Formats: sequence, structure tokens, C-alpha cells
Amino acid sequence: MKNNYLNVLFGLISLSLIGCQTTGTDSADKLVSQELQQKALSSNLAYELVESLTVEVGPRLAGSEQDLVAVAWAESKLKGLGFDRVYKEAVQVPVWHRGEAKASITAPYPQPLVITALGGSVATPTEGVEANIIRFDSLKALQAANAASVAGKIVFIDHVTERHKTGKGYGQSVGGRSKGAIAAAQKGALAIIIRSIGTDHDRMAHTGMMRYQEGVKKIPAAAMSNPDADLINAMLKRSKNISIKLQLSAENQGVATSYNVIAEVTGSTKPTEIVLIGAHLDSWDEGTGAIDDGAGVAIVTAAGKLIQDLPLKPARTVRVVLYAAEEVGLIGGKTYAKAHQAELQQHYIAAESDFGAGRIYQIDFKASEQGYKELIKHSQPMTANGVVMGNNKASGGPDVSMLPSMGVPVASLRQDGSDYFDYHHTPNDTLDKIDPAALQQNVAAYAQFAYLMAQSKIELRPIATK
Amino acid sequence: MKNNYLNVLFGLISLSLIGCQTTGTDSADKLVSQELQQKALSSNLAYELVESLTVEVGPRLAGSEQDLVAVAWAESKLKGLGFDRVYKEAVQVPVWHRGEAKASITAPYPQPLVITALGGSVATPTEGVEANIIRFDSLKALQAANAASVAGKIVFIDHVTERHKTGKGYGQSVGGRSKGAIAAAQKGALAIIIRSIGTDHDRMAHTGMMRYQEGVKKIPAAAMSNPDADLINAMLKRSKNISIKLQLSAENQGVATSYNVIAEVTGSTKPTEIVLIGAHLDSWDEGTGAIDDGAGVAIVTAAGKLIQDLPLKPARTVRVVLYAAEEVGLIGGKTYAKAHQAELQQHYIAAESDFGAGRIYQIDFKASEQGYKELIKHSQPMTANGVVMGNNKASGGPDVSMLPSMGVPVASLRQDGSDYFDYHHTPNDTLDKIDPAALQQNVAAYAQFAYLMAQSKIELRPIATK
Repeated sequence: MKNNYLNVLFGLISLSLIGCQTTGTDSADKLVSQELQQKALSSNLAYELVESLTVEVGPRLAGSEQDLVAVAWAESKLKGLGFDRVYKEAVQVPVWHRGEAKASITAPYPQPLVITALGGSVATPTEGVEANIIRFDSLKALQAANAASVAGKIVFIDHVTERHKTGKGYGQSVGGRSKGAIAAAQKGALAIIIRSIGTDHDRMAHTGMMRYQEGVKKIPAAAMSNPDADLINAMLKRSKNISIKLQLSAENQGVATSYNVIAEVTGSTKPTEIVLIGAHLDSWDEGTGAIDDGAGVAIVTAAGKLIQDLPLKPARTVRVVLYAAEEVGLIGGKTYAKAHQAELQQHYIAAESDFGAGRIYQIDFKASEQGYKELIKHSQPMTANGVVMGNNKASGGPDVSMLPSMGVPVASLRQDGSDYFDYHHTPNDTLDKIDPAALQQNVAAYAQFAYLMAQSKIELRPIATK
Repeated sequence: MKNNYLNVLFGLISLSLIGCQTTGTDSADKLVSQELQQKALSSNLAYELVESLTVEVGPRLAGSEQDLVAVAWAESKLKGLGFDRVYKEAVQVPVWHRGEAKASITAPYPQPLVITALGGSVATPTEGVEANIIRFDSLKALQAANAASVAGKIVFIDHVTERHKTGKGYGQSVGGRSKGAIAAAQKGALAIIIRSIGTDHDRMAHTGMMRYQEGVKKIPAAAMSNPDADLINAMLKRSKNISIKLQLSAENQGVATSYNVIAEVTGSTKPTEIVLIGAHLDSWDEGTGAIDDGAGVAIVTAAGKLIQDLPLKPARTVRVVLYAAEEVGLIGGKTYAKAHQAELQQHYIAAESDFGAGRIYQIDFKASEQGYKELIKHSQPMTANGVVMGNNKASGGPDVSMLPSMGVPVASLRQDGSDYFDYHHTPNDTLDKIDPAALQQNVAAYAQFAYLMAQSKIELRPIATK
């Protein structure tokens, strides 16, 4: 019954589309958009997808055996959902093995510490590294320190990550994780252990990628839980001489082949033009990758499926890209940008969902000034789903963040990330952290976004530079 | 200035005490009780004590090296606080070493599990135990099962612990932990892994003591986190054949000497009569023992110190007992009861603080019917601190739970335990889980309780049997 009704509705809509050239939302687009929202809010597909991914695949570190299980899972799911086209593209990814990670305070008050190796870290010698620590408030403070005070010590960066709806606290503290080992090694440190980049008070350390720099010694890098960092601060009030022993058996094991897995709803009138909605398929290895980024995979897949099932396909092609190896350096995103270089001019707009399953409260764009003004009118149907129109300063999400510099407009569908960094990159990233209703709201927003963009007649280029 | 005022006040009070024989609170006792409350609510002593214990000692498993560090810490602190008498009494405690604990689902969907060994468990063979699992809702369901269905399998008891202010959910589910290995082994199981006895959704397993039974095979016993148990249930919806591999290197290592550490405020007129307030000094080895039971140690010590510092000591002796080895079988409590058997007739009443640092909302007693009726009048000053008068069915706390059967009245100062089992017996039992204001409220309640009991003229024996 419903389908009959829809067929009639879409017949009317398709008639109404002819010759329509307003910059606000076409009334037919608005109707379809409303229908997409209603369908998304009553569908369990996204939850079923993230449940399936976390249960049947689980942790899927780039380059691991499970990474390829995830690729097979994605291909199978996308094909099963009946997308017009499903394919994969090879991505060469670095392989890192976590191994064991142990640390303890050895003086003045011996206690075990809860730590985790940072992604990409080298191992310690088997017997470990034991040395006094030197504490810094931030990466900046470490960078400003006298090398003589750091040499021979284990650097402890104690940067507290603040809780914000936007997640901006992460951006403020994550430099210590990504660049701390370089700064510490440049000053002669033996190793680095940071306070976890996380907003929780759980005795769980947060992993995440760290970097080395050519010509700078590679020193072992780990993170400790927030309560452990508090413990060390309590000891530092009693004594300046805190020694720690660190043992890591992590290993970088070369390169493996993974895949970006891609599904498409072929556009009805402009099939070569692309609206890209993405997420990343890989995860860290300690949780089951539910919020990072099983949720994103589920959201963009379910959104794409709603568009696939429309009686009348939108003008442009909607491309769902499940990126490989985001966690270990946006490798899937970079590979995609390179492989599709010739086609980037045909990418109308791109967005990635990679911030858990919190509700979307705002959409930002990165387009031309005039295009942005028209986009916020055209996207008005999204407000019924709780999404307000934001600014023209979007980055688009990690795997599409390099696209604006190549001329491709992007959008950021801003999620409430208040608790995202409680669980991010820890064993606690599990299915129970996802609110099914919030996940549905995300699907509605992405479905509306993708549809409206695939129908849009707005010129988005060239991107505003300021 | 305050002390001068107090000396005058207590002079007046001591005069007013002469010949006073009402069953309600003496007005002088009420004044002292109010003063104790005010002092407790403005003192940081308890927080400083639990901070010191968690930072300078940390995990202190009975029989471990750190257990003796804790004993030395307690003796030193109690002496430093100026109690009339500080001493220790030897306790023979079982020594158990946790070793490593690993588990993974090996089929149909290979995934690592987050587990912990249960206290007292034997090891698996080095290569581990791998078998299909069989799931039960509860210990009772396991006990009712056909042995043929259990033999050769790993038992999974999936009893969810419900959250209650009283903590009663723990009592409903903990049987699976303590007695599950016996029931499983009697039916031929190879090992047992239970859903953690905990109310959280953290990827942390809750340890705790398990038992074996003479004549029944000792099988390895572990607990998995709640999200891991959810994961297995999700797999069980897909397949009955879930196999798990379990590796434990736990070891029972004989017996060591630990100590109950005791401090006393000598009674002014009935020094041989005892009001006992206790807590346990030992902790599990994965957290720092903040809520279990650093909080209790801090509460009863700070309460005792407030009474020690009164210008006029109460009639009876207030004895602060920091028990050894509660976690591994109430060993300190049992040893105390035996060692003090001849003196138990002189124990007026006993209570233990061992339920974290949540606010006390009620006091229950276990005394004679008439004594109970008078106690709830006599204890009225506690209501100003938020403590309502409860029933006559107290157990008194783990280490004093055996005393009522020996004729000793007890009280239970009921704490709000809504979040206690989120952290209990996990690495998450750390200082940040304690609310300093709630801790002060506990100290006030214990100080008032101990003082009022030490002054009481009520006959509490013989204990009501119903």
C-alpha cells in the first residue's frame, strides 16, 4: 500500500522537477526529504549493521587478519542491500602489532599502572626501560623545555582533555600523543607516557596513532589512564623522583593490502557527478569499534540504502565509501583522493561520519560564499530532524579532509560528542555505548543530506578561501 | 578559643551526666553528638587518609608484599593520630597470585575477551582450555542442569547484577561467583567464566573470591566484563556452538602472616567494654582499593580520632579495628572473633564500614527487642546528619557478621550503594570515585554512632532471634 502511494507521489514529484530552478529547497525535494527522515527514524537497519559488524567481525585493526574479514563483511552487506554498484579498491596499509604493554611505578611507591601502547610505537628492550619521569603540562611545554632536564628520562605529558559537545578538547590535547615522541626524543628522552587523550575517569588507557620523524630516534610511546595520571600527580606532590618501568613489545611489521569498500546509487540524470558520504571500516584493536567507526559505517550505509530504495533516484550518484585504515593515518582517504584525482572535479560534495552516534545538531559546509548561502536554504528540510544550519568552515571529516584543498566542497554533520572521548580508542568502545534512537537520527540527517545534495542545482565552487 | 569553650561545655556536660538514666538521648550526649557531626563535616582527615593509603600503598592483596606495607602504614597513621593504644594481632592468610588471564572466542566469530581470574582460582594448563560454552541464567539454573549437557564444556553463568541503592543485586548474583565452580565441576565442566558481578557497562571484569569444595575437582574460574557477556549473547542468537579459549596462570601459594591493626580510645568509666567500629585494610590487587575498603578505613579511623580528641572521653572504649584479609574469606574478622572470644561478652556493639563512600541514609541494629526500641530513641541525634532509624535486622558488615551468633549486638550504617558495584573489585576502584563530602557525612555518622553507643545505658542483650 505504502509503495503504491509512494509511486504516485514520486511520479508527481518528477513532473514538478522539470524546469524548477529556485535556490531554496524544491517542494518535491522537501517532500522526499521528509519521507527519508520518517523512514530513517523507524528503521533498525543501522543498528543491525553496527551490531553485525561488532559481533561478527569485532576489532579490525588496519592490516590485520580481521581487517580483511571486515572488508568481506562490508562487500557482502552492501551487495545484500542491493546497491546499484559495489566494488573495492586496494589500499596499502602499514601493519602494526600491539604486543604486550606493561608499566609500573618503581619508586617511591611501587604500584602497577594501566597503560596501552600508542599506535605505531616501537618496542622497548625486553627488560624494559626504567627511568625517572619528567612531567609537562602539554606538548608545548615539552617543546619549550631545556634538553638537559629531559635527557635520560621518561617524558610524562599530563595534558587533561576537556569535555565539550564539539569534542574540541581532543584537538587541544592530541598533539602530545601524535608529536610527543618526536619532541621527547629530540631532547634525549628514553620513552614517553602520556595522560590518555580521553575525558573519562575509567582505569582504561586510550590508544591512538603516534608519529616518528625521519632522523629523530624512535622511542617507545604509551598512554596511561586518567586515574593513573592522577596517581602520579599525587606522588609528585610528595617527591620529585618518580621512577617508572615501561615494557612494550609492539612491532611495525611492514605493509599489507586492505581495501576501500564502495557502494553506489547511480544518479538518474547526472550519474557521473558524485555526492560522497563516507565512514571508516577499520578500528583500533582493543574495543569492537562500535562508536569508532562502526556507527559511521552503519549511518552512511543505511542512509545510502534509503536513497537506493527511492522510487525515483536523485540526479547525482550517491557514493558510500567505507575507508580503510583511517586510524593509522587516513590512509584510505589519501589513497581514494589519489586514485580518484581525475574524478574529483565531478565530486559535488563529500562528508564523513566519524564521531560516534551522538545526535547531529548542526551542519557546516565548505563551499563558495554564494553556494554556502544557497545551501543553507536548500538544506532547510534537515531542521525538522534537529539539525541547524551552521557555518562555512567545515572540514568534512578525517578521510575527506584533504579534498577541499583539491577543490572539493565538503560538509560536516556535527554530532554531540559530549561522551565520545570517554570511550574513544579504548576497550570500552562497544555496542552498548550506542543509543539506537540517536543512531536513527544520524541516518535521517545523512539520508536527507545526500539526497538534497544529489538534487541540488547550486554551484558550490570555487571554495571560499577564508 | 574553641578549646576553652569546649572544656567549659564538657565540664558542664560531665556534671549533667551524673545520675542520668533516661532511655532517650541524654541532652549532654546530644550536644557532644552535634559537635562531632560539625567537626566531621569540616574535617579533611578521612579524605587525606584514603588518599594516602591509595597513593602510598595502593593495591594490597592479603598475603602480598604490599599487604605488609599497608599494615605498617596503618600502624604508623594510627600512632601518629595519638590514639590511646595501637597494636596489631597476627592473622594467617591464604596467599593467591593472580598471574595472567587471557580468553578469546575462537568460534564462530573470533574475538578477544576482557576477563579476570576469580580470587582463589587454579590455573589452566599452559596451553589453556578450549571448549564450547554452555550458558545459564543463574547458579540455580546451573545446579538444576543435566550433567550430560555440561560435561566437557566451559560454563557461562550470565546472571545480570541489578542496580539498587541497597546493593541487594549483588547478593542475588554473587552465588555464581562463589559457588559456580563447584556446581560446574560436579557436572563435569572444564572451566567456568561468569558475567561479572557488577552493574556497570565498562569493559572491565570484576574479580572476587570463589570457592572450591573438598572432593570436587578444582576447575579454573574467571569473570568477563558485562559488554563481553552481551557479545556472547549476541553470538548465541546466531549459533549454539560458541567456543572459548581460557588461559589462567593463577596460583595458590600457601599461607602468610598478616595483621589486624587496632586502635583504641580508652573508655572513661567502663574501659573494658568495647564499641567496635571496623573496616578492612586489605584490597583486591587490580584497583587501588579506594572504595573497597580504603574509604571504610578512613571513615572509622577519622571517626575514632574525633572521639580520641574529645575533652571528655565516653564511658566505654571505642575500638577501631582494621581487619586483614576480608576479601579472601573474612579471615581477619574470623581470627578476631576467635582471638577475642573471652572478651566478646564485653563487646557492647560492633559495626563495619565496607560499602564505599556513599552517604549513610539509615542505621539498622541487631539487639534485643527492647534494646532496639531504646536504641532508635537514643540514636536520634544521627537524624540531623541524614540518617534515619531502621530495623532490627542488621548484619553489621562482613567482618563482624559472625558476632551476632556469638551474642554480640551489631549495627549496619546503610550507605547509598547505587554506583558501588560499578567499580567494585575492578581496576576502576580508584580515589576519584570517592566524593569527599559524602565521605565526611560517613565520618560524622560513625563518630556519632560510636560516641552514642559508648555512652549508652541501654541493655542490648540477648539479641532478638527473629
